Amino acid sequence: MYIEGKNAIKQALEAGVTINKLMIDKNYQGRKDEIISLAVQKKIKFEFVPKLVLDKKSKTAHHQGYIAESVDFNYCEVEDILAKALTRGESPFIVILDGLEDPHNFGAIIRSCECAGVHGIIIPKNRAVQVNETVIRTSTGAISNMLIAKVTNLKDAIKVLKENNVWVYACEAKGENIFSCNKDFSLPTAIVIGSEGFGVRQSLIAYCDGVLSLPLKGKVNSLNASVACGIVVFEIVRRRQV
Amino acid sequence: MYIEGKNAIKQALEAGVTINKLMIDKNYQGRKDEIISLAVQKKIKFEFVPKLVLDKKSKTAHHQGYIAESVDFNYCEVEDILAKALTRGESPFIVILDGLEDPHNFGAIIRSCECAGVHGIIIPKNRAVQVNETVIRTSTGAISNMLIAKVTNLKDAIKVLKENNVWVYACEAKGENIFSCNKDFSLPTAIVIGSEGFGVRQSLIAYCDGVLSLPLKGKVNSLNASVACGIVVFEIVRRRQV
Repeated sequence: MYIEGKNAIKQALEAGVTINKLMIDKNYQGRKDEIISLAVQKKIKFEFVPKLVLDKKSKTAHHQGYIAESVDFNYCEVEDILAKALTRGESPFIVILDGLEDPHNFGAIIRSCECAGVHGIIIPKNRAVQVNETVIRTSTGAISNMLIAKVTNLKDAIKVLKENNVWVYACEAKGENIFSCNKDFSLPTAIVIGSEGFGVRQSLIAYCDGVLSLPLKGKVNSLNASVACGIVVFEIVRRRQV
Repeated sequence: MYIEGKNAIKQALEAGVTINKLMIDKNYQGRKDEIISLAVQKKIKFEFVPKLVLDKKSKTAHHQGYIAESVDFNYCEVEDILAKALTRGESPFIVILDGLEDPHNFGAIIRSCECAGVHGIIIPKNRAVQVNETVIRTSTGAISNMLIAKVTNLKDAIKVLKENNVWVYACEAKGENIFSCNKDFSLPTAIVIGSEGFGVRQSLIAYCDGVLSLPLKGKVNSLNASVACGIVVFEIVRRRQV
């Protein structure tokens, strides 16, 4: 995976993303450069190459003289997420993303989940955003501390969770008010967050143990996906804390 | 205020943003066009102009043949926000943004606040993002249902709130755990959300009635500003609901 441009690389370096090689425009050789200083500090291998080489490698045409080659993200299995909770001696806490599309939302969700102590995130292989450069950047480093499982079929993943006594709740409109519901969130819990445009698919809701909703006023009546995920995840944190 | 580009204008039209005039590249005249259909449907005045006119008017150089002239956003006074709560017979619920910089975060916060029934948002005149095209778009229409006061000095605004018996809490690290604190959020309440990089300024915290924190685990230890705002705002909704 390539990361291009000064800011993106700077944030990736600061976030501790593993970078194999950094290519820098050879015209920058010898000048005082923020990226070069950071690379030296973080002991990242870098080389100066002709601008033409960068132009050829670039996919965005906005490399600004810098392209980093990072390790492809290592997805895990659903079982690894359950094992992580077991190792920590905690009740499993999992977030399932049903067809999320926006990399900024995905990155923000990874960040919120890491802060909330979620053990892992499950995403589908198709028709959904995958871990990419924008996701890594937006997660502000949380990605390197988060297990993400990529599965062919979310229904099968939910089945595995249920076999392991995890309660699975869809977060959607017209469900039970999450603030007043009497679910026991101290039990192993997974929540399903839907896509920005369509929410959780009806066919997937059928596999869940219930539907939870946030009480919304106003005219817009829908929250940004990453905000909604943050509120639900921290409501579970709150219930587990009490 | 100008809104440029096909998607931005489409979303503004759908969100019900008041548009005075829509200029369209005259080469598009006669073709089947989504924006033209929407403008006809919403009864927005539009005219076809030479591409050169658009190029000259454009500030982003990405007008794609469409520039809309929208009404400048009408900011209100702090007193208007208090009056709105009074009219509704509700306890005032206000969000103060201390130097927020990212328009996407501002838009998402407006959206969350509208959904939570917040009566108004207060922003500073300087060194902070103002209502612009990106904010309007990201708020997905919530902006037309939200009072926003722009003030010269946030400290003075907090003074006005206090004179009106509003309790003001800063949301920052190292404060009281918001989930276990014994504040009475059914009283008139304002929360202060800090900037993405620096949080709430220390000099402003001194004017607040307390500091509230979310209990964070993990290594990243900070949430996206709009997610943090959403969680805090909905915790107040939850407490007011109980």
